[in-house]
This record gives sequence, structure tokens and C-alpha cells, in this order.
Amino acid sequence: MADVNFTPAELYEAWPVLSQEERVEGFEVLKRDDADDFFLQLSARDRAALLLALPFGERRLWMRLLAPDDAADLIQELPPEERENVLALLDESTRREVKGLLDYAEDEAGGLMNTRYSRLRADMTVDEAISYLRKDARMREKTVYYVFVVDAEEHLHGVVSFRDLLVAPGEKLVRDVMRADVISAPEDLDQEALSKLFMRHHLLMMPVVDAEGRIKGVVNVNDIVDVVQEEATEDIQKLGGVETLEGPYLQVPLLRMIRKRAGWLAALFLGEMLTATAMGQFEAEIARAVVLALFVPLIISSGGNSGSQATTLVIRAMALGELRLRDWWRVIRRELVTGFGLGAILASIGLARILLWQFLFGAYGEHYFLVALTVAFSLVGVVLWGSLAGSILPFILRGLGFDPASASAPFVATLVDVTGLVIYFTIAAAVLSGTLL
Amino acid sequence: MADVNFTPAELYEAWPVLSQEERVEGFEVLKRDDADDFFLQLSARDRAALLLALPFGERRLWMRLLAPDDAADLIQELPPEERENVLALLDESTRREVKGLLDYAEDEAGGLMNTRYSRLRADMTVDEAISYLRKDARMREKTVYYVFVVDAEEHLHGVVSFRDLLVAPGEKLVRDVMRADVISAPEDLDQEALSKLFMRHHLLMMPVVDAEGRIKGVVNVNDIVDVVQEEATEDIQKLGGVETLEGPYLQVPLLRMIRKRAGWLAALFLGEMLTATAMGQFEAEIARAVVLALFVPLIISSGGNSGSQATTLVIRAMALGELRLRDWWRVIRRELVTGFGLGAILASIGLARILLWQFLFGAYGEHYFLVALTVAFSLVGVVLWGSLAGSILPFILRGLGFDPASASAPFVATLVDVTGLVIYFTIAAAVLSGTLL
Repeated sequence: MADVNFTPAELYEAWPVLSQEERVEGFEVLKRDDADDFFLQLSARDRAALLLALPFGERRLWMRLLAPDDAADLIQELPPEERENVLALLDESTRREVKGLLDYAEDEAGGLMNTRYSRLRADMTVDEAISYLRKDARMREKTVYYVFVVDAEEHLHGVVSFRDLLVAPGEKLVRDVMRADVISAPEDLDQEALSKLFMRHHLLMMPVVDAEGRIKGVVNVNDIVDVVQEEATEDIQKLGGVETLEGPYLQVPLLRMIRKRAGWLAALFLGEMLTATAMGQFEAEIARAVVLALFVPLIISSGGNSGSQATTLVIRAMALGELRLRDWWRVIRRELVTGFGLGAILASIGLARILLWQFLFGAYGEHYFLVALTVAFSLVGVVLWGSLAGSILPFILRGLGFDPASASAPFVATLVDVTGLVIYFTIAAAVLSGTLL
Repeated sequence: MADVNFTPAELYEAWPVLSQEERVEGFEVLKRDDADDFFLQLSARDRAALLLALPFGERRLWMRLLAPDDAADLIQELPPEERENVLALLDESTRREVKGLLDYAEDEAGGLMNTRYSRLRADMTVDEAISYLRKDARMREKTVYYVFVVDAEEHLHGVVSFRDLLVAPGEKLVRDVMRADVISAPEDLDQEALSKLFMRHHLLMMPVVDAEGRIKGVVNVNDIVDVVQEEATEDIQKLGGVETLEGPYLQVPLLRMIRKRAGWLAALFLGEMLTATAMGQFEAEIARAVVLALFVPLIISSGGNSGSQATTLVIRAMALGELRLRDWWRVIRRELVTGFGLGAILASIGLARILLWQFLFGAYGEHYFLVALTVAFSLVGVVLWGSLAGSILPFILRGLGFDPASASAPFVATLVDVTGLVIYFTIAAAVLSGTLL
């Protein structure tokens, strides 16, 4: 442990793999300024863990470094029994603000907003506004670039940037330099919708207003970068058939890791058991023509892979707002063509492979050509079906009010495995009847 | 087409599904101010398409609305033969700036930066700086919140926000209110590394400097939000076994859609053919004990699903910087435990299912218990192997210099399918030798 004398950059880099004791030791030896910066760079989760590991007497200092929204985020990461103790470290007025913020869900506009922002009245002159802000701004957050124009009841009337104030003639009224058509978010707007608004209008800050149009706080674009990253992580994990991990891979306790994965894995396993039932229905056919069994993994995995492609593309397009519920028919039309094309490509490769092996090794008996045809037709059917099922399942889930990203690649693969077997053995029965079957 | 009289919001909403003619018609009927805003909200790709669809005489107007970096992005989206024509629409000095930007790759700091920013000298007083900016800022971009302090050779010495200037005493020197330890990016810094710097330091803007420390431009956080979204989309599509689509789902031409999916699908199909070879090795065993074939899809899909979970988690953790190459041993240790736990859970369910079906339907013959044991042992082995392979493959790919996200869920599933069959039939041979086999 003598080697924890890190520079701030080294400490930040090593943080995920350090033990709790090493973290505290590394943090305590930083110079005061570096430690401030370092603490502000940590995620809310890491800040909460570090705070609890620090001696009780030092905690107040670090909590008071945080803006109310950051303090609220930290407190939400604490175990419930610690929350009151940490709240008590804040000064009276911050504590009141933080408590207000804790009433919002973490993933809505109210839960992301900062309650400290600058305001002006519309009937001030630009010169008055600047000299008011020169006195006022010292008290405010470092992250202020816009000033919001409000009336006595805090109703939002406009917005003006420091830059606009600076370049406007001093005798003009704020009302004449402000932008009146402010894009604002209701308190309960979901963070995904909020981030789309930010991206569309290239905003740096957005005011959050209540139902009466009174400003309650502002959301900063930096928090939106985190939201976009976090939403992508959730979607990726869901697509991989895992419940959202809610923490860095190396830091999630093993038992929770198993729980987060076991749920979906067991559900998929139960679904996949239907393949044993389906195969059981065709047990007599397999006994008569064992050669059929050889191609089962090839056929069903091709369906699963094409389904995985389709569901991935559709789910991501939905998350980006490129596909809406009412586009389902366009998607089906596209996937019909795409699935048929892809199926035909795989069928040609499969046909060539079986004929080649037959020619080289005589591997598939006298009816090899009918076997090859069975495989080829099945591939077209299964890939087409995989593409359709994979693309349409997210629409069905969304239509029913579920998260479309639950149509994970493994989920679609499982669905397609069972039906793929039925397609394969049905085609086999038709093609091979009278010869092998 | 009489119904294209959209409000700007309706037009934006409907944009992805409109035809080229409907877009132009909808755009042309907007009021001038709305049309300006609307044009600036479109993505570079959509702007380029719209521009080419507009009458030649109108194009100059719209090109001149764009900042140099936006103009460069638009030009990169044009077919090569149109680029010179569109460049010619710009005024002389903007054209020179845009040409300079076109020399950078789209996905590095230089390709993302804006060349218009405000600058000051360190030895001005705050009052001088403010009055200089009041004259200067009118000429500049709307998106300026920081002013960069440079010397006569454009070397970057510090940064100061409008807010800091506003609240500082007027007689102080800029050098005394600026922040000297500026976080800056080299011109060729990859956009993923750049976005990590932005997120870590909660920045709104970052200067881009050349090897001699001269400022070349600034990257705005709004572009970083787009980068984060775009990188996530690439990773998600790769994870789903699709080449990056490079366009919205509904707008990618069908032939390109098939090409983007056929490559991986065919490669996976060729790999999956090894399952037919592997099954062929065990053809005699299957003929003797057809019951073994029934569980093949169940076993290999369980391996594929657990591998898909593991690879998804590891690839995302790598993208977020939570896992580095040297963490491979920690990951293996975690996946050994997790894979064994998950395998044991599935094995118990599988065992229960076979015993129950035997009890209810007598489905699996006199050696049902040995069959059940074979399935249970195989599940532990296959799930453990799937978790290990899925988690370690991204490390191997990255170590070899490939993109770890190429270890897509279907890729891992295919790998695990082939080896899973070998595991299953080897265990079957050991457990059932002397009875069924």
C-alpha cells in the first residue's frame, strides 16, 4: 500500500480497480485543489462510496463542495440509513433545496435540474442587468451561460445569454434583447425525451418549468451527455439479454451479477425447452433419417442470427426516434425483401457446401440432392421468418407498453429456434416424403 | 401532395418518412425564420440531401447560414462530384476555412472543431477586454461562452468565460482572471477519447491545438452529444452482427441494407457449418440414441445466450473505459464464478424438467436419469464455456488491434455452438457409455 502516491490523473485512471482503502489513501494525499477537482470528476456513485469511506469529520467539507443537484444525486446513491446523516451535513438552505430535488425521479427533468441559476426582470436595461449580474453572479454556479427573465411570481418570460447582454447597447431593455420563445421542459419529462430536445435544438441549458410556467431549475447539457451514455448502456445490456447492471462491470458484486443475468437466461431456457418438445414431435423422422439432425444447429442459428440483426437495427432506430410505432408496415415490407435476399444468399452457400461435401466425401447418402434442397428451402424460410420476427417484435412490445429493447437478440433467437425447427421438419416432410421419410 | 402544409414541428417529425419532393415542398412553405431554425436542426446528412433537392439559385442562401464546421460536415455528405459546386457558393474566407477543415478526418478533434471563436491578449485589463469583445462578439458565432487567451503566434495561454470577465473587477488583468491550465485536445485526437475528456471534466468547449500548442479551433459540447450517440449506435449495430449502417433504418437503400447484413451473416453461416461437421462425427451416437438429438438446440442455445450476455457486458464496459486490456484476468475470474453459477441454475431447471416429463409422459426411456445427468452436466460446461468465451473474445480482438465490438453476440454464439456440441457429445459418451451408447 506504499505505492498509492498517485498523481490525480493516475488515481483517476486506476480508480475502478482500487480497493476502498487504497482509494481513500490515494485521495487523502492529493493537494487540496487537486482533491477538489478530483472529487468533482467522480460519478455520483463513486462520490457516495468515497464519502462513506472518509472519516466522519471530513465529510462536511466535501458535501459543501457540491451543487444541490450533485448533492441530491450523491444522496440517492447512499444506503437509506445513511441519507439523513449526510443531509445533516449541508447548510440549512442547501438542505431544503436538496430535499426538494429528492422528490423527483432520477430519470426525469426535475431530477436532473440544478436549482441555482441567474434571473433578471424584463424591464431592466442592459446596463442595469450587467451591473446587477456583476454583483449577483459571484454567488452563483460556475456553469451559468444564460440568464432567465422572470416576473415576480417566477413565471418564465425569456432567456438571454451573457454574450447577448455583452454585445447589446447598454440602454436597451432586457425584454428587447431576450429571446421570448424559450424551449423549456416540464418537470416530469423523461430524460430520453429531454435529451432529444437538447440534441435537436443544440442547447446548452434548458429551463424546467411547472404546470403554471414557473421556472424550477435548469438542466445543463453536461448532464445530458451522461444521460445519452447511460441510456445507450441500458439498451445495449438489454439487447444482450441482461438486466441493466446499474454499475461498472468490475464493481458489481458477483451475486448481483448472477442475479441480473440468471433471470433472462432462465426465462430463455424455459422458452428454449420448447425446442426439445418440437424435436420430440419429429423423433420418428430423425430416427429414420439421422442426416436431418446434422443440420439442425445450422438452420436454427441462421434464423437466430438474422433475427438478431433485425431486432438490433429496429430497436436502435426506435431509440434514435427514426422509427415510430406507425412505421411498422414499412418495416415489414423492407424486411420481407431483405430477409428473402439474405435467405437466398445463405441457401446458395448451403446448397454448394452440401453438394461439394457429397462430391468429396459422399457424406449424405443417395438422396443427397433432396437433403440439400430441404436445407436450402429451410434456410430461405427460417431467415425470412427470423428477419420478420426480429423486426416486428419490438413494435409489438412497444405497442403493448413494454420497452422494445426487451426484444433482445437472445429472446428473438429463442423464438426463432422453436419455429425454425417446425419450418425445417415440415419442409423435410414435404421434400423427402417417399424417399428418406 | 396538397397536405404538406406542415408546421415546423410537424415537418421535423414527419421528415424521415417524406419523399424528396414532399420535403422540399414542406420546407419551401415555412416562414423564413422558421426555415432558418429548421435547416439548422437537420443532421448534416439531411441538410446535404435537402440542399441538392433545392433549386440551384437558393442554395447559396442556405450554405451561407452555416458555420464553417457545419458547412464542412455538409460537404462531406455530398457525392464527390457535387463538392466543388457547393464550395463555390461560400464566400472566399469561409471557403478557405472549410477547405482547411476538410483535411481532417470526420471522427477526430480537427474534424469536429469550429474555427470561429473569440480571443484576447493576456495583458489587457478586464474593462479593455469587455469593450473589445462588445465590438468583436457581434461578428462571432452565437455559441461562444469562453474566450481564449493567445499570444501573437496564436499559442494558447489560458481561457476565461464571459461570466468570469463580467464578475471580475474592471482594472484587473486578463492574465489574473484567466484559467491557465486549459484542457485542450490535439488535432488528431479520436472522437471517442475526446468525448471521454468532455465527460470527465464537464466541459462545454475544448480548444484544439497543433503540435506547437497553437489554437486551431474549438469543439463544442453539442457535437460531443452527437458523437456519444453515434458511437453507441455503431457499437449496438456491431453487437447485433451488422456492419455500421451509416444512415437511418428507413433511408438506407435496400441493396445496401442487404450488403451490410449479408457479410456477417454469411461469415457466421460458414462458421456454423462446422456444427454440421461436428454433428457428423457423432452421427453413430445419434443413430443409437436419438433422444440425444432432442436436446441439441437447448444445450447450444444456452451456451450462445450466456456468451451473448458476457460479450455484451464486456464490450460496453470497454467502451465506457471501465475495463482496460490489462483487466483480462479479473474478468476471467469473475466469469468463472458467474458462468458456473448460471450453469448450475440452468442445470437444475433442466434436470427438473426431464424428470418431470419422464414422470408425466415417460418420454425418455429407461435410461432417463442418465440422459438427465448428461444434459445437466453439459449445461454447466456449456454455460461456463459460453461466459468465458464471450468475455475473453473482446480482449483477444482488442489485443490484436481489432475493434472489440466485432465480438458480436451472434459471433460468440456461433463459436459456442460448435464447441458446445463437442462438450455435449463428449459428456454423453462418458455418462451413457455401456447403456445407451
